[in-house]
Amino acid sequence: MKFVIIGGDAAGMSAASRAKRKDPNIDIIVLEQTYDVSYSACGMPYNIADPERDMEKLVVRKAEVFIEKNKINLLTGHRATTIDRSDKRVSGITVGGESFGFEYDKLFIATGAKPVVPDLPGFDLPQVMSLKSLEQGKQIKTYIQENKVRKAVIIGMGYIALEMCEALEKRGVNVSMVKPGPVFLPWMSPGLADIISDELKNKGVNIYSGYTIEKIEPLGDGIQVCCRDLTLDADMVLVAMGVEPCSDMAKEAGLDLGISGSIAVDRDLKTSDTDIYAAGDCADTYHIVTDDKCWIPLALIANRAGWAVADNVTGTKTRLQGIAGTSVFKVFSLEVARSGLNLKEAKAAGFDPVENNVKTRSRAHGHPGSTPIHINMVADKKTGRLLGVQMVGKEGVAHRINAVAVALHNKMTVADFSQTDLAYAPPFGPVWDPLLTAANQLVKKI
Amino acid sequence: MKFVIIGGDAAGMSAASRAKRKDPNIDIIVLEQTYDVSYSACGMPYNIADPERDMEKLVVRKAEVFIEKNKINLLTGHRATTIDRSDKRVSGITVGGESFGFEYDKLFIATGAKPVVPDLPGFDLPQVMSLKSLEQGKQIKTYIQENKVRKAVIIGMGYIALEMCEALEKRGVNVSMVKPGPVFLPWMSPGLADIISDELKNKGVNIYSGYTIEKIEPLGDGIQVCCRDLTLDADMVLVAMGVEPCSDMAKEAGLDLGISGSIAVDRDLKTSDTDIYAAGDCADTYHIVTDDKCWIPLALIANRAGWAVADNVTGTKTRLQGIAGTSVFKVFSLEVARSGLNLKEAKAAGFDPVENNVKTRSRAHGHPGSTPIHINMVADKKTGRLLGVQMVGKEGVAHRINAVAVALHNKMTVADFSQTDLAYAPPFGPVWDPLLTAANQLVKKI
Repeated sequence: MKFVIIGGDAAGMSAASRAKRKDPNIDIIVLEQTYDVSYSACGMPYNIADPERDMEKLVVRKAEVFIEKNKINLLTGHRATTIDRSDKRVSGITVGGESFGFEYDKLFIATGAKPVVPDLPGFDLPQVMSLKSLEQGKQIKTYIQENKVRKAVIIGMGYIALEMCEALEKRGVNVSMVKPGPVFLPWMSPGLADIISDELKNKGVNIYSGYTIEKIEPLGDGIQVCCRDLTLDADMVLVAMGVEPCSDMAKEAGLDLGISGSIAVDRDLKTSDTDIYAAGDCADTYHIVTDDKCWIPLALIANRAGWAVADNVTGTKTRLQGIAGTSVFKVFSLEVARSGLNLKEAKAAGFDPVENNVKTRSRAHGHPGSTPIHINMVADKKTGRLLGVQMVGKEGVAHRINAVAVALHNKMTVADFSQTDLAYAPPFGPVWDPLLTAANQLVKKI
Repeated sequence: MKFVIIGGDAAGMSAASRAKRKDPNIDIIVLEQTYDVSYSACGMPYNIADPERDMEKLVVRKAEVFIEKNKINLLTGHRATTIDRSDKRVSGITVGGESFGFEYDKLFIATGAKPVVPDLPGFDLPQVMSLKSLEQGKQIKTYIQENKVRKAVIIGMGYIALEMCEALEKRGVNVSMVKPGPVFLPWMSPGLADIISDELKNKGVNIYSGYTIEKIEPLGDGIQVCCRDLTLDADMVLVAMGVEPCSDMAKEAGLDLGISGSIAVDRDLKTSDTDIYAAGDCADTYHIVTDDKCWIPLALIANRAGWAVADNVTGTKTRLQGIAGTSVFKVFSLEVARSGLNLKEAKAAGFDPVENNVKTRSRAHGHPGSTPIHINMVADKKTGRLLGVQMVGKEGVAHRINAVAVALHNKMTVADFSQTDLAYAPPFGPVWDPLLTAANQLVKKI
């Protein structure tokens, strides 16, 4: 069987390796437009933070290893451009300018996502960068080093913006963050978002929410970001306004699109064409709380979906249950985590949500080094069902959220969750785990 | 209504406070034999470790606060000795030697547990101590200070033994641990137990498993622990051979006993007498994996059960779902956690268990500071159900176990657990969370 994969990142390479393991005779071609196929993309901000660390350390497996050891026909520098569904053929062009075409029995579109860059003057200046590919990561790191960057503007305030803010601050760069939206972290409960913005301000970061960006223009050796009522000068600009799915090719081939322009797929990762799969950052997925489609581009989802595609292509029928939208990030001394829906999302999904906020401690009474843990918990008033949790604190947040994710997968009520036997020892939390305290309080409101 | 509570520790005081909150007119008497009613017992080893920290810092709430603010008739220094079920009366004796007697409508036995001390010569020497009450904690701390203890023997190798081992080492005390049982941590998967014993040995702790203890005797200014084929000299001995339920009074009153001599109770915490409740370290409970009775004396269980008793006594019918046996402790640089059953327990409970061991990393590929995380996961071969997990590592273990606890409460299969959307960010773990890697591997064995 000819199995062609477009995109050699998390979803694509997971699928390729697993398919080859399950069926050594399968004929796999992976078309990757860059030369990097298996690296820790999420690790880039942390690597950029440290001038001593080589960016190559983020590479998990080189292309040659897939080719020689895994016997996968991995073609780097190959950009697919067209899917011809009637002829079952993918064509494209190499970095060298040569055309290519491959027939497929099964096709897997794993084209990922790309940074949103607004169509405004000056966003094409060399000092204006985005962080998505390893190449871009290297470019940013080199630029900081070679140009002795002292002042940067980050446009956007999402995960990558916040992680890069910390990375730049660690490099001695003064950072200003700016975005058109009026609310700092609109998906977060306001009380929790304030804790994060306070942390940023304490580290000397300037936050400008609600400023419409008009253009970027050169200014002496540097550049300036011109907003309505605000001008910020800088040595470099990072555009981190989020990502959008790379679904143009799929759209042109007539495949159905889903949420946010991502490729619509079923629980078995099939698109509207039964011979074509899609997964990872370019495709939509089911949310286990709403049972509706959503588009949340995250690494684990891509890896797991890649495996599922491989299973389905090689004959083991596999359906994914869906995602809880669990995510976690570090920003300076804070751990920030979420899983499930916030109040607004819960309302939009048709629930009758109620929320509460609790502030508890990271360690037991009388144990030194205890710090606050802030929790926002959302439940459905009608059914008592737990819908989502957000947490912020200096310790004990990142891994604690997993208990919530598992509870959401099981559609637990808050009352049942409040009865779970969570771990206790003085260095790790109070007798009543912060999540149990939050649940105990929320039960009273239901 | 006259509600009498025997024992003013975690379960007893939780029940008293909650009952008074729910029904301000209830007539509550709490009989506590000591003078300490609300303190972090589990925090004692950590407090003992630090000579600068006052042990009073562990007190959460003083007896006077319960009496004056909560209007609870809390009688400290009152040791209950007899329950007369036909007259519904509890009698006893005060520290001052006065007899007392109180009638009850509902009685709650929350007498806790006491350290196991073998009936052997020398265990009554003043240099031989146990750690259970705050008074005992203070005694140990003062003893270390005043006698400039340099060498200690700990008899036993349970949680408290290990935590006290670290505490003593931090005070500059050389520690030897000894016990009759041949296996260091018999409840742990051998590979994981080895990691802990290696850590102890690296810290200079001597471990002697399988030595029958015959007596303790004075030796110069100190003492010596005499075992068959081994003699250990020391400035002090800590007896930490586990605890046993304080159920004598209940037994004499004719109440049914359960597992390990604990008081048998139902899911609503009722004993075999419908007017008498029991909970906390003196009573048994249901295990959510086996649905059978078990006796696992831990703080959260006692607190939660105390609340449930208060609810039932004040008219809100409350039944507990049971416990997963989740526990966590810190020993030097290691976090150790478990939830559910180990292989042997699973076999004994009638499952057809299969286990696997995986070694993963605490942080993402290429992220600095990553350390190993070792996981033992047990499942039922017949049903695919997840039965238990043990974990050891330097970070990311203590809170991660909670995801397992929630999965066990929901009787999830390993396959379903392997599909959960656990959090990922490079500082906190690999893309595939260590628990997911363990589940992915174990699925193949089922």
